[in-house]
Amino acid sequence: MSAKSFDLVVIGSGPAGQKAAIAASKLGKRVAMIDRVAMLGGICIHGGTVPSKTLREAILHLTGFRHRSFYGNDYNVKNKISVRDLASRVNQVVERETGVVRDQLRRNDVELFVGTGRFLDPHTIEVESEDQDHILKTDYVLIACGTRPAHHPDIPFDGKQILAGDQIFQMDEIPKEMIIVGGGVIGLEFASMFSALGVVITLIEQRPAVLDFVDSEIVEALCYHMRHQGAIFRLGEKVTKIDRDDRGRVTAHLESGKRMHGDVLLHAVGRQANTDLLNLEAAGLSAGARGKLAVNENFQTSVPHIYAAGDVIGFPSLAATSMEQGRLASCHIFGVPMRTAPGLLPYGIYTIPEISMVGETELSLTNAKIPFEVGVAKYEELAKAQIVGDHTGLLKLLFDPDTRKVLGIHAMGENAAEIVHIGQAVLSFGGTMDYFRDTVFNYPTFAEAYKVAGHNGLNKL
Amino acid sequence: MSAKSFDLVVIGSGPAGQKAAIAASKLGKRVAMIDRVAMLGGICIHGGTVPSKTLREAILHLTGFRHRSFYGNDYNVKNKISVRDLASRVNQVVERETGVVRDQLRRNDVELFVGTGRFLDPHTIEVESEDQDHILKTDYVLIACGTRPAHHPDIPFDGKQILAGDQIFQMDEIPKEMIIVGGGVIGLEFASMFSALGVVITLIEQRPAVLDFVDSEIVEALCYHMRHQGAIFRLGEKVTKIDRDDRGRVTAHLESGKRMHGDVLLHAVGRQANTDLLNLEAAGLSAGARGKLAVNENFQTSVPHIYAAGDVIGFPSLAATSMEQGRLASCHIFGVPMRTAPGLLPYGIYTIPEISMVGETELSLTNAKIPFEVGVAKYEELAKAQIVGDHTGLLKLLFDPDTRKVLGIHAMGENAAEIVHIGQAVLSFGGTMDYFRDTVFNYPTFAEAYKVAGHNGLNKL
Repeated sequence: MSAKSFDLVVIGSGPAGQKAAIAASKLGKRVAMIDRVAMLGGICIHGGTVPSKTLREAILHLTGFRHRSFYGNDYNVKNKISVRDLASRVNQVVERETGVVRDQLRRNDVELFVGTGRFLDPHTIEVESEDQDHILKTDYVLIACGTRPAHHPDIPFDGKQILAGDQIFQMDEIPKEMIIVGGGVIGLEFASMFSALGVVITLIEQRPAVLDFVDSEIVEALCYHMRHQGAIFRLGEKVTKIDRDDRGRVTAHLESGKRMHGDVLLHAVGRQANTDLLNLEAAGLSAGARGKLAVNENFQTSVPHIYAAGDVIGFPSLAATSMEQGRLASCHIFGVPMRTAPGLLPYGIYTIPEISMVGETELSLTNAKIPFEVGVAKYEELAKAQIVGDHTGLLKLLFDPDTRKVLGIHAMGENAAEIVHIGQAVLSFGGTMDYFRDTVFNYPTFAEAYKVAGHNGLNKL
Repeated sequence: MSAKSFDLVVIGSGPAGQKAAIAASKLGKRVAMIDRVAMLGGICIHGGTVPSKTLREAILHLTGFRHRSFYGNDYNVKNKISVRDLASRVNQVVERETGVVRDQLRRNDVELFVGTGRFLDPHTIEVESEDQDHILKTDYVLIACGTRPAHHPDIPFDGKQILAGDQIFQMDEIPKEMIIVGGGVIGLEFASMFSALGVVITLIEQRPAVLDFVDSEIVEALCYHMRHQGAIFRLGEKVTKIDRDDRGRVTAHLESGKRMHGDVLLHAVGRQANTDLLNLEAAGLSAGARGKLAVNENFQTSVPHIYAAGDVIGFPSLAATSMEQGRLASCHIFGVPMRTAPGLLPYGIYTIPEISMVGETELSLTNAKIPFEVGVAKYEELAKAQIVGDHTGLLKLLFDPDTRKVLGIHAMGENAAEIVHIGQAVLSFGGTMDYFRDTVFNYPTFAEAYKVAGHNGLNKL
C-alpha cells in the first residue's frame, strides 16, 4: 500500500473540519479529509444542528404555531402530524446540505477519504475504507472528529421509547407524554419543539437552573412560555434509574423519591467525543474526560503539529464557533495572520421562542463591578411582531451609562438569532446607544426593536 | 369657542407625526395632534403599510408558499382562500396597532384632537370634530397629513372590480385574473402577493423598467420569479382607457393598441397629498403637484415655523424614513442637535421575495466613476435557506477593491429587510469586508450570508 503525502489531514468533515480544509486549500496546500461513510458534514448535518432546526421549522409550520395568536391556541395546519411528516422534510434538507458540503470540498480540491481514520504514528494516518485502505503522510493534522450522544450503560436505550438525542426519528409516533432528561441547549430545544407539537413535556435537570450562561430574565421568560404550553420543569433533581412499568410506560426514578412517567424518554445529557476511534496513543496523545482533547489558544494539542477544533474540544460546541475554530487553526498552522474578536461570539439557541446573545450579561458585568444600564424593546411594541403574531419576544441592550457604549445584546423571539448580529456589529466597532437612536430601520421589521430599545435605554439616563 | 395654546401642533398621526410629537413631548413641550376619526396611525396603519404587510403574511401562511419547495408547487395550507380569511387577520393587526399608537401618545402626554384640521392663520388651526370644534394656537406646526390614492376622474372606480390601492379588501372574492396598473413599490407588492395566491397577474407600467432605484440584478431576479409564478409584465405601455366588456370583465386599453382583460383591475399609480383639506392659503402656503409640499433640508416649508414631513413631501414615502423625518423636524424646531446618516437610509420592499438595500448601487458607483468589487452569497448555499426552503435569495455586497470598505448592501429573499441592517451598521462605522470574514455568525441563519459574501468578495481580490 503506497502512502500519499499532504500538508494537512483533517479528521472529520463537520463545520470545523470543512472550514479548516477549505482555508488551507485556498492557501494552495494539499489537504486530505477523512470521514466515515454517510457522515459527510458531520453530526451537524447528520443528527445534530441541521436536522433539529429543520424539525423545528417543520413543527412550526405543520402546527401553525406562529399563527395561533390569530387563529386560536388549538389551531393546527395539519390535524394529525406523524413522525413521517416531520422526517420527510428533514431528510430532504440533510440530503441537500450533504450535497452542498461535497460540492464545496470538490471545488476547493480537498481530497476526501471515506472511511475510519486511525493514527499509525504522529505523522501517519491509516484510513480503513470498505473498498481499499489508504496511508496518509502529513505535516499537520486537525482532529475535528466530533462527538456522539453518550450511551450510558445503565440506561436501557431501545431506540423506540428510551432514546438518545440521535434516535429521535426512530420513534413510531408522536408521543402524548415525553420525559426529557437534561436541560442543556439540546434538551431545551427538543423540549420546546415537542411542546409546540402538543406533547406534555417533563424536563429533568440535575442543576438548579437551565442555560445558566444566558440572561436570567430571558431564561425565566422561556420557562414561563414553555410552562404555558404545559411543560413541567423538575430542576435540581437527579435521575437514579430509568425503566418501564407494567403498562409499557417509561419511568424515571428520581433521587428525591419521585417517579416521572411518560410514553417516551429522551436522554440528552453528555456527549462522548469520537477520539476513541483514532488510536490516539500512536500519535502521542491522550484524551480527557469523555474523550475530549485539550488545546491551547491556537488550537494545538500537546503534540504541536496536531490541532483539534469543534465539538471534540468542548464548550460551546456550536456549529458557528466550530467553523471559526477550524479556520483559525488552519491560519495558525500555515502562519497566516488572523484576526478575531473572541469576546464577541454569538450564541444562538433554537428553542421556541428562539434565544440569541452576544457580549456581556448582567451577571458578568455585575461580577466585574462594571455599572450598566438597560434598554428594552418588547416585541409587542413592534408592528412586525403584531403582523406575524409574536407577542413574546424581547430585545435587551446592556450599555455603559457614562460612555453609552454598547456592552451586550440579548434577544428572544422570532428572528432573535438573525437580529443579534446588528448589535454585534455595533458592539464590534465600539458603537454607542446613539447609533440605534440615529439609524433608520426598515418598517416593519424585528430589527426596529433596536430603535425602540435604544430610545428606552437613553431615556433612562 | 376658547383657544388652547401649544408649542407644536402636528397635523396627522402617521409615522412622521407620531415621532415628531413624541420627540417634542419628551422635551417637555405642549404638543397637540390632529387626525380624522378612524385614521389614528395614518395611512400606514389604515390602508397602507401595516395592512399590506399583514395581507402578505396571511397569504404566505394560508398558501404555504414558503413550504412549497418541500411539499410541491400545488401545496396550499387552506384549499379555498377567501377575502374574509385575509381581511380577518388584517383587521386584528390594524386594531392592535391603533391601540399601540393611542397608548404611546397618551403615555407621552400628546393631546389628541379627533377631527379635520384647517388653518385659520399661520399660527391658528381650527379642528372640526363631530361633537365640538376647537381652536389651537401654536408656535410651530408640522404638516404630516399624508396622501391618499389619486382617484383619476377618467377611471371608473367602483370598489369591486376597478380598485384603488385602499379598496383591495372591498373585493367580493379572490379573482382569477388581475390587472395591476403601476409598477412602483405598491403595484409590485400587490402583484407578487396575489401572484402567490395563484392569481394570474398582468402588470402594466408606463416606464420601460420597474423599481429603477434598485440593483438591476435584483429587479431582474424579482421579475424572473414573478414570471415563474405566471405574472405577465407589460412595460413601456400606457393605459389610455379602462372599461368593462360585455362579459363583465375589466379591459385596459393600451396606447399600443393592445387590450388586456381581467376580473379585477387595481390602479396603483400616483398618490394625492391630503393638503387640499388644510386651507393652506390661510397659512401663506401653497402646494405643488398632487398637493405635495416642498421643504428644505430641515423640513421647513416656505413659511419657516411650518414644517412638513412624511408622504406629503414625496419620495421615498416609506414609514421608516417618515419617522426619521418627523423626529428630525421636531429636533430642528426645538434646537436639539441632531445626527443622522442621510446616505444610509435603508429601503425595504415587501415583494415576494422581499428586497432590501442600503448605500450605493452599482449604477451610482459607476456614474460617479468609483471602481467597486462585488461579493455575493446565494441563499441556496446557506443551511438556513435550505431549512426554510428559500432557494431564490441573494446577498450582494459592493466594496472598494483597494480599501476593502463596504459601499452598498443589496439583499433579496426571506428576511432581506432584517439582515440588511447588519451591513448598514458596518457601512455606518466605515467597516471593511474583513469584518464579515472575521465575524462569527449564528448557524443556521440568513445573517450567515454576510460571511459567505465576504469570502466570495475577498477571494476576487
